[in-house]
Amino acid sequence: MTIQPWKILSSTHLRENIRLDRCELPNGKIIEGTVLEFGTWATVLALTKEQEVVLIRQYRHGVQKVIVELPGGAMDVEDESPLAAARRELQEETGYTSDRIIQVGCVSPNPANQTNLIYSFLALDVEKNGSQQLDETEEIEVFLKPLDEVIAMAKNGELLQSMQVSTLFFVLAYLERIS
Amino acid sequence: MTIQPWKILSSTHLRENIRLDRCELPNGKIIEGTVLEFGTWATVLALTKEQEVVLIRQYRHGVQKVIVELPGGAMDVEDESPLAAARRELQEETGYTSDRIIQVGCVSPNPANQTNLIYSFLALDVEKNGSQQLDETEEIEVFLKPLDEVIAMAKNGELLQSMQVSTLFFVLAYLERIS
Repeated sequence: MTIQPWKILSSTHLRENIRLDRCELPNGKIIEGTVLEFGTWATVLALTKEQEVVLIRQYRHGVQKVIVELPGGAMDVEDESPLAAARRELQEETGYTSDRIIQVGCVSPNPANQTNLIYSFLALDVEKNGSQQLDETEEIEVFLKPLDEVIAMAKNGELLQSMQVSTLFFVLAYLERIS
Repeated sequence: MTIQPWKILSSTHLRENIRLDRCELPNGKIIEGTVLEFGTWATVLALTKEQEVVLIRQYRHGVQKVIVELPGGAMDVEDESPLAAARRELQEETGYTSDRIIQVGCVSPNPANQTNLIYSFLALDVEKNGSQQLDETEEIEVFLKPLDEVIAMAKNGELLQSMQVSTLFFVLAYLERIS
């Protein structure tokens, strides 16, 4: 069996980044589905020399809760690389910087209905080099936790965002802590 | 600093499950954002007695590619539990079943713009007990790979979906393979 792609019969946009596709499936069935045309995302697990992770706390409107996350965001500058986006988001959201930022993984947030990828980075030896530079829609609290505590938090669901748990997987694989 | 939630000023729907909220931020700024009102999802890493993982291959229209995934889907039956959904999706998509299905994690696919959660399960000692029961929009190829190979695939990005990498994290944590 060779699985065939769907054929797009027509596309319209409900909003700038929400596309509605009418598709013909290999079996002839016609269906409609929405596709989210988001830009590339980057997220970074930033470790201090003391093996503490730089975490943030912010309100997230999908779940309508204040939650704990790793820093990260979208590549919103023209021609910005994922690495540059990770470095910029880390600095803007937390004030921490590092010269040692390593790409550890790249996945799709949801291949069924999103076009974009998310890159995962590990930043080593990060230091606080300045203050946050938040845009006016952001309110972010920064705090540190030992890496082992962050792993425990992830296990019990306190690191709520799946893309950040996958980032932790990639970091632990890079650090050879997965057997 | 206590981070405050946003206040919803008005909500409309662009489509049945795509809500457009107009919100007032704690600083008084007004913004508009879309929220995807998806149902609860479940995904399952199913292991045979020989420690092989039941994988599927299917076309995913967001990335417009045929990709490798773990079985899973939405709780589309009234009052279905996440565990029942995982069991049903495993059986429908692959024909494999098990009496030993354990919840290992629960996260948000994207807390910024989705309302739903995704539950991760580990199924042990799965056996092929029947044939696939696909709906007419599904075309799914089933194959087995040793768990160690699936971990290697995840590390190099072949398990493309972030929620399935996070499921692998939860499974490996449960199996005490994360140090």
